[in-house]
This record gives sequence, structure tokens and C-alpha cells, in this order.
Amino acid sequence: VSTDPAHKKDVSSAASFLKEIFRETGLACRIHKTSGHPVVEAWSPPRKGVPTVLIYGHYDVQPPEPLDEWLSPPFEPTVRKGNLYARGASDDKGPVMAHIKAVEAWIKSGALLPVNVRFLIEGEEEIGGTSLTECVGPNPERFHADAILVSDTPMLGPGKPAICYGIRGIVYMEVTVRTAASDLHSGAHGGLAPNAAIVIAELLGKLKRKDGKVNVPGFYRNVRPLTRRERESLRAADWDPKRYLREIGARAFPGGEKQYHPRERQWARPTLDINGLVSGFTGEGAKTIIPCVARAKISARLVPDQDPGQVESTLEDYLRSKCPPYAEISIRKFESASSLMVSPDTPSIEAAGRALRRVFGRPPAFIREGGSIPILSYLSATLHAPVVMMGFGRPDDNLHAPNEKFNLGDFHRGASASACYLEEMGRISKGRND
Amino acid sequence: VSTDPAHKKDVSSAASFLKEIFRETGLACRIHKTSGHPVVEAWSPPRKGVPTVLIYGHYDVQPPEPLDEWLSPPFEPTVRKGNLYARGASDDKGPVMAHIKAVEAWIKSGALLPVNVRFLIEGEEEIGGTSLTECVGPNPERFHADAILVSDTPMLGPGKPAICYGIRGIVYMEVTVRTAASDLHSGAHGGLAPNAAIVIAELLGKLKRKDGKVNVPGFYRNVRPLTRRERESLRAADWDPKRYLREIGARAFPGGEKQYHPRERQWARPTLDINGLVSGFTGEGAKTIIPCVARAKISARLVPDQDPGQVESTLEDYLRSKCPPYAEISIRKFESASSLMVSPDTPSIEAAGRALRRVFGRPPAFIREGGSIPILSYLSATLHAPVVMMGFGRPDDNLHAPNEKFNLGDFHRGASASACYLEEMGRISKGRND
Repeated sequence: VSTDPAHKKDVSSAASFLKEIFRETGLACRIHKTSGHPVVEAWSPPRKGVPTVLIYGHYDVQPPEPLDEWLSPPFEPTVRKGNLYARGASDDKGPVMAHIKAVEAWIKSGALLPVNVRFLIEGEEEIGGTSLTECVGPNPERFHADAILVSDTPMLGPGKPAICYGIRGIVYMEVTVRTAASDLHSGAHGGLAPNAAIVIAELLGKLKRKDGKVNVPGFYRNVRPLTRRERESLRAADWDPKRYLREIGARAFPGGEKQYHPRERQWARPTLDINGLVSGFTGEGAKTIIPCVARAKISARLVPDQDPGQVESTLEDYLRSKCPPYAEISIRKFESASSLMVSPDTPSIEAAGRALRRVFGRPPAFIREGGSIPILSYLSATLHAPVVMMGFGRPDDNLHAPNEKFNLGDFHRGASASACYLEEMGRISKGRND
Repeated sequence: VSTDPAHKKDVSSAASFLKEIFRETGLACRIHKTSGHPVVEAWSPPRKGVPTVLIYGHYDVQPPEPLDEWLSPPFEPTVRKGNLYARGASDDKGPVMAHIKAVEAWIKSGALLPVNVRFLIEGEEEIGGTSLTECVGPNPERFHADAILVSDTPMLGPGKPAICYGIRGIVYMEVTVRTAASDLHSGAHGGLAPNAAIVIAELLGKLKRKDGKVNVPGFYRNVRPLTRRERESLRAADWDPKRYLREIGARAFPGGEKQYHPRERQWARPTLDINGLVSGFTGEGAKTIIPCVARAKISARLVPDQDPGQVESTLEDYLRSKCPPYAEISIRKFESASSLMVSPDTPSIEAAGRALRRVFGRPPAFIREGGSIPILSYLSATLHAPVVMMGFGRPDDNLHAPNEKFNLGDFHRGASASACYLEEMGRISKGRND
């Protein structure tokens, strides 16, 4: 759990565990110490004249809370009905393991690996950390690659492979309002004292309009509209509202702009959400206080061509301007990243399409994704290599939520697809990116 | 800490501790078991022909959280600059102890106690519990009294005694909204999924109008306006806005209806506050989820002649009607009580005025109080006796907040005033209430 300093040692243990696995697989391996969590690098014996595939992934996970909603403990992997349940099963330990098994299969088969393979598995993806840049930045030649292969996006559904060609960016901030020196007795001070919980409710209660639009001036600046072809292709990707609502256990999907198709809202429109909210007494029973502090975590997902810095300032300006003068507001910024787009007709992406077709018996859908993988923009730009997002998880894998799972069939199909991809890449003549 | 089931044993220990003190004082004592926390009763040897004073108080306290704001541990009483700091120091263990010491002084002086004294010290005041009614209800004759003496209201300030003739009532509820089966990844679902934190912010963000009025139709039904005389007397009681803001560490007092005098807002107008708020990820760092549950505790203080049941229904109807149909709302009700008023020219209250003048050298102010003591309405009605609210705490004692304190000078003056009150009551001919 990379976000919680109390788990620093556990994160290190996960890196060491991964190193052991790479060694057993027959790869050279090195743990890079960073100012944050370690990065695990592993590589096959370099061969000349073949392309290099850099496989990026992460071994860190989201916090498992709320614990009482897990049917089996989050850190005791449990198989039920063909699924492996555990925090990180689908995001991203399972998919990383599929790639490792693909390389192991090549090695054990006795055949030469058709490409040079280098793994970069980091421990700060879930916190948008930048420690990976500390190990890549000073020595980008070492990490030279013809393609950056990533399995951290979903398939379209069971048996329906997908290649993701666009992911959203993100800004994330924590907003704190303070209204008094301490919590106050709600009888003695009720009718006079300011209430921090009311201030934050009024502040955040105005963020969205009834039609789902974000009510912050400048929030949509530079949002690139979909081309007509993209919009048609989005609508073609099947999306069943009833199934979606059943999957998430909800009655409606009011979370975005009503005027757009659900797929467009999910993949190609910016969003704003409250991720956490706390103020005053949250324990069992009744406590009659007026809270003096309220805190919210809010984040936005960004699309091309929004600028994370501009969205951050826009949000901050809005919150400061709407906060009543009697409340003290402070804003702490966490991760931010711009969105990332790749062209589907890049040769290394076409190779992924062929690999998936060989394993799943059908061509992949080309999709975009609502999530963010902040480090990918950096890697792609620094290594001058296209990002190939070929995911093996399912949309209902409960990422970041209780009862995260990974289908074991998808694990095996993923490993096969990865092995095929390495072969397909081996057929592409080296040097395209030189 | 009576509200937390985990502290049930600690509450019992406090009752046993109190029993020991009563025994050492020379009073008969009995612990009444109830369906909730025990009630401690103590009494002097009954004498005929003298009035009976029932001294009501409570040995339970509010939760001490947030712990990190206490300068000394909440359950290790610490003296700093003439004040005793501890949870319960002023609310209500210190004032109860002052009465015990007054009775002890009479007994040790060798003189006869001028009245019959009976203590009823309960363990559920802070949760609005009703266990006290289980021991009084079946046998009200046993608790016959000519006056019910209570020290659970403040003085006007240092050296300024006060008698409280009105306290507010209360309703308290917990509101839960649920929007999905589990927390969801804010990337994969942002733009679609409902967000429980946004729902509760929008719901609670509309509770108050800009002028401080509660925005709930029917909320002010039956509110009794102040008489012109009362209003004049409220305005006469000194109230310094600058000092108030300094005491609570705030920049303004926007918590009530702007059109009324601060004292009227604090004592004689109903209020609505959020006491607690929680949703989603509240830990350290960033977690990118869309919360599926949000929970708020809200409470209202009531004045004559508001009906708690009507206010509860009004609030509940409002919240249900404003909750969007895609969110599931549930409402759990906690304590409720109507307000209580007594007439200042009741003989047993005049006796308290004389006692306070003897000790403080000045007559008491007649004030009202913003807080609620739900059980007092019950006791007064059941025992047909007036409630005498003669408090020894100060407005800045940090009740229900970190660093609760009680001034040791006030403790001694309180004990003297209590001793004088028993003498003054002894002079009143018995039988007024028969």
C-alpha cells in the first residue's frame, strides 16, 4: 500500500519478492533504490538485431479499506469460482505475473526469446509517484525500447480483448477548511459558531450542475472534442446500461455530463469527484459538537488537451473564491498528469492486435480508458517509444474497491497473448524508432 | 464515555468510584442497575419537617476525541494556572463534586443538615439516555423533592454567577446515503457512477440559507417569540463579540439567524448543525475512489414550543424529498427532548439567588442556555418540583471539546454556594409543592 508511510517496509518486501521471482524465471534483476519506493528492473540476456520490448507494471496497490466489505482477507489470495480474490489481483500484480510467465515459457521452451525484454515494475503507480523517473532519467539509453508494453487497462468484457489507445490524466488535491480553534459544544455555541462541516458541504455541494457539468469556470478549457469517426466507434463498442448498473450495484449513472454518450463520458470527457470527506464526530453514537475542521479529497480526470496545471489552478481559485471569509481554506496538491493518446496504426500496436487475435480468436476492440497511468506519458516521451496498452482485466474486477479479483482464465490467456506479442514483435524489423 | 459500548465497564467503574465517595461523605448510597448505564443515588438520614433538595448531575462524559489536540491526557486530571484540565472537569464531574463537598462540610461541622438531600447522579446524560426514568418512574414518591438542583449550566463569566431559567431541547439523527454496492475506481467509473460524497454534500449544502435561516419548511413551527421584557434582558446581559471570537478562535459567528441578537440566537432560537461527516477515503495520501456510502450526523436545538417529534419528521421528510432517486437514504434517530423553562420568581430559585449573592457578592444574572439536559423536563414533571439551574462552569470551559477545564476557584465558590443554598432552602417552609 504505497500511499501509507506505515507500509513502507511492506512495499520493500514486495519488491524483494518480485526480484526472487525474476531470478527464478532466469532474468537478471536489480532493485533500484529511489527517494520513494524501489523500482524493480529485470532483463533478458541482450541480443543484437532484435527489437526490445519494455514491460512496464507496478507492484504497489491501493489501500484495502473498507476491510469489512471483503469476503476474504485482501492480502490472503483466495480462489472462488475461477477468480483470484486479493488486493492487486487485477491491478496490477496478476497482469504483471502473466508477462513474467510468458517470458518464462519462452525460456523454458529452449527457443531463443524473439526480442530483448526488459521489465520495469515500480511501487508508486497508485500514488502517481515519480521515483521511476529517478532511475530512467539519468540513463535513458539503458532503457531504450521499441515498444512499452503495459497491462493496466481492461478488456471490453469476458473473451473480448481490447487495446487501449487513450487514457485520461488526473489532478488530485486535499481541501481543508478550518472555522474555529477547536470543536465546540453544539448547545452552547449552536446559533453562533461557524460549522466547518456545513462550510465544506456548501462548498462541494455546488461543484456540479444538475446536468452533470462541472460548475467551475475554465474547467473545460482546451477539451478536445471527439472526431466524428471516434464518436461513431465509441458508440459501436457495446455498452449495456442495465448490465453496467448491475455490475456496480447502482440505480443510475448520474456522474457525468448527460448530453454525452456514456462511453464518451467515461473515456473522453473530464470528470470531477469527491474521493473522501471527513469532519467532526464519525464514531458510533451521538456527539453534540460543532466541528472546527473539515477535509475533502477531490480529483479530476483529464482528457486531451487539458493542462493539469491549469485545471489545478482553476479548481483552487474556484474553491478559494467560494469559501466564506470566516473559514480558513488550505489546499494540498497530490499527483497530477496529463492524458495520453497513441495512434492505433503504429506497427507495435498492430503487432499487439495480431497477438490478441491469435489467442482470443477475434480482433481486439480499440478503446480508451477512464483511468490514468501518469508515468506512461513520461516513459513514452523519454524513451521515444509507443505505449502498447494490452490489458487482461475485466471491467468488473473491483479495482480500488473491496473484493478485487482477477479471472484465472484471463491470467492464462494473458500469458499466451504476451508470449505471442513477443513473437510478433520479433518479426518487426528493428530500428524503426532510431 | 457513555456513547461508546466499548467503554461500558469504564462507565460502571465511574459509578462505583462515586459510590465510595458518597460513603466517605457519610451518605447512604445505592447503585441502581438499569437497562443502560447505572444510576448512583445517595441520601442523608431523612428528617421530618424540612424540605428536600434533589441534586441531579451526571458522571458520564463526551468522547475525548480528537486526542492529539489535548495538551494533557483527557483522563489524567492536570492543574495548570488554577484550572483543572480533564474530560468531565466542568461537564459535569467538577460541579457534582462541589455539591458533595458542600454536604460533607455541613456534616463535618457537626450541625444538622438544614434540608434532606438526595443525589441522583446518572451515566447517560451525554447520550440523552432514559435509564434514569427506570429508577424514578416506578417509585416517584421515594424521590419526592421540593427543588431539583442542577449544576450543568455556565456562569456568565468569571465572578459573575448566573441562574439559568431556560434550556433548549434537541433532536439528533444519523443520515446515510448509499449510491453503489462498493467504492469504485474513479478513473474507470468517473463520468458515470454516482458519488455518495457528492450526494451528501449537495443534500447538506442546502440546509442553511445565506441569512442563517434553516432552509427546511416547517422547521420553525411553534417557535415562541421572546417577550419584549425577555429580549431587553437578553440584550442587557453583556456579550462582547470580540471576546467571543477570541475564545472560540473564529473570525465570525455566522451559525444562526443574522436578524436576531447573538444571545437570542444562542439561547432562544432553534439551530441546525452537522456534527459529523464521513465518506470514502479519509486516510493519509491519495486514493482514487468514488465513495459508495456517505454518512452525516446532524442535530437541531429546540426552543419553546417546538415539538421534537414534529421537527424530526420535518427534517426527515426534507432530507428524503431532496435525496436524488438514485441514492438510497436511511435515517437513524438518536436522543430527542423538548426545551425546558422555569419561572425566575419561584421561591426555590429565589433561594438560589440569595445563596449566590452571599458567595459572589453580587446577584446572579438570569440567563437561558443553548444546551440541552433532556432528563430535566422528565424529572420536573414527574416529581412536581421546580428545576434550579445554578452552574459553576465558565463559557470557555471547552465542554465537549479538547482541553476541557474547570477553574478551581469556581469549584470552591461553587461548594460554598451549594452549602448556602441548602441553608436558604432550610428556611423555606416545607410543603409548598404538596
